[in-house]
Amino acid sequence: MHVMVIGAAGMIGRKLVEKLGSDAEALGRSIDRLTLVDVVAPPVPAAFASVSNALALDLSDASAAATLASLRPDLIFHLAAIVSGEAEADFEKGYRVNLDGTRSLFEAIRFEGHKEPYTPRLIFASSIAVFGQPFPEKIRDDFFTTPLTSYGTQKAICELLLADYSRRGIFDGIGIRLPTICIRPGKPNKAASGFFSNILREPLVGQEALLPVDENVRHWFASPRSAVGFFVHAARIDTSTIGPRRNLTMPGLSALVGEEIEALRRVAGDKAVKLIRREADPAIRSIVSGWATDFDAQRATALGFKAEANFDEIIKIHIDDELGGKI
Amino acid sequence: MHVMVIGAAGMIGRKLVEKLGSDAEALGRSIDRLTLVDVVAPPVPAAFASVSNALALDLSDASAAATLASLRPDLIFHLAAIVSGEAEADFEKGYRVNLDGTRSLFEAIRFEGHKEPYTPRLIFASSIAVFGQPFPEKIRDDFFTTPLTSYGTQKAICELLLADYSRRGIFDGIGIRLPTICIRPGKPNKAASGFFSNILREPLVGQEALLPVDENVRHWFASPRSAVGFFVHAARIDTSTIGPRRNLTMPGLSALVGEEIEALRRVAGDKAVKLIRREADPAIRSIVSGWATDFDAQRATALGFKAEANFDEIIKIHIDDELGGKI
Repeated sequence: MHVMVIGAAGMIGRKLVEKLGSDAEALGRSIDRLTLVDVVAPPVPAAFASVSNALALDLSDASAAATLASLRPDLIFHLAAIVSGEAEADFEKGYRVNLDGTRSLFEAIRFEGHKEPYTPRLIFASSIAVFGQPFPEKIRDDFFTTPLTSYGTQKAICELLLADYSRRGIFDGIGIRLPTICIRPGKPNKAASGFFSNILREPLVGQEALLPVDENVRHWFASPRSAVGFFVHAARIDTSTIGPRRNLTMPGLSALVGEEIEALRRVAGDKAVKLIRREADPAIRSIVSGWATDFDAQRATALGFKAEANFDEIIKIHIDDELGGKI
Repeated sequence: MHVMVIGAAGMIGRKLVEKLGSDAEALGRSIDRLTLVDVVAPPVPAAFASVSNALALDLSDASAAATLASLRPDLIFHLAAIVSGEAEADFEKGYRVNLDGTRSLFEAIRFEGHKEPYTPRLIFASSIAVFGQPFPEKIRDDFFTTPLTSYGTQKAICELLLADYSRRGIFDGIGIRLPTICIRPGKPNKAASGFFSNILREPLVGQEALLPVDENVRHWFASPRSAVGFFVHAARIDTSTIGPRRNLTMPGLSALVGEEIEALRRVAGDKAVKLIRREADPAIRSIVSGWATDFDAQRATALGFKAEANFDEIIKIHIDDELGGKI
């Protein structure tokens, strides 16, 4: 099978490629060709050194999508996007990359199918940003998408396109609405959601972290390992059982910041918790107050998608995957 | 006020322009300029002969949208679209006209605002085709849009764009999800929904009409007069009270084909009903079985949008507006 990962240099893209390299059974079929794509050439894992190709190109450039579709991968993971903050700050770039780039890919697959039959599986990274407040206590699978950011709008539009192209048999698509990924590895960043990860990741290595909101803030989480699991599972499921509703809210963990902190205390002790410094930031509190807090992800759960049940698990996954298993 | 109607040669467009011509108070402000746009030059009503301009252009052509936005209308009614059947049969034309044409208009307004502040009110004709089965018994305002046609997909995408552009203050948009319009004036057509109108309109003038489905088929209706009323009301309401959810399911009448027929009997007698010839058409029955049957249009109703309460009213409106008040 020829697998293509677009956005392979991003955090989840890299971890997905690592997973494919370390678990030959991950997709249920062996990978005999791997094409990794991002705006910078993504790293190629050792396991795939002989069958991999790393391409540096921007999906929003005129010929990029046609180049990718002409390679006729059997399975495409499309994770490339600019993030929420940038799409909000730069209207034109957000629509060009997140909407037009994705639509170009979809169109290139359609044109490729005109040459010779071609219907790849396509897994698209969407987001719970397709939802906008006010919310019910738990967001059901049939709740409407009323995004309050341009990023969420672009993702919601791509979901609609994905469903229509799949309905017409142009490709076999699944949209994966990711929860907020926690614990994000790497350095603290300025994303409004960064603190959810920072207050765990930094204390685990003896560093101070800022908490800009109250402990009673609730949000919706999954680990990076679960995110990779969502993509791998989506590549394997029998889409003939899904019907035309191709966009799925992934399962996740609804938890309070206070629950994050108590899990940190259980796993790493009081000394770790003492490294969390409270420094209220009304701007971040205001942004976060508009985010979804809980979902009833029945369809994805019934289809076998899985996430963590508590923050202890999320922290232990981080320790295993990022800290060599010990703190 | 400068008013622009895009799609002014269509059935609802023509009736909207007639209304503006016959009721100087319709919009609450006087119209000192009227620009009518369609792919063929629309007729100009006598009342506006001195202040009207009729333009024949296609919104999906490269410079058309910029031409329209450069006229800087205060209020834009955007009703131009190709219909559901054509958008399904011609994938590229549907996306080009219904999605790219609308997006070009939205972008042209944005660019126009860069020259000098410009925030027109924009009323967009959407459709209940944004919904796809399976449905609850009544579709609530917060039910998700999972269209099962490319037309419905294009309308749902334009709704998302409209909401985002409105949220950003590029224009002041309202999306109007129209019920099936009944009784459509004119000749019987081949649209799958045509029979809902045909079985009333033709017998009212002594002509036979075919009924291809059972009498227990339920659907969602409003008269052409109500459709015009929706657009006029949307132009007048205070959008500061609506919030960011700018797309509204219009009120309508949920009724059985059998109820249509009984209303026809009350208004026009048994001899009219006898002109309905039953001729089952499994293809039409199959298409219609996927359509929405009932809505709980709470938001639009609370905002003052109004439709008919029964089919007797719908038939009487047709007799008044199309048959000179008598049969």
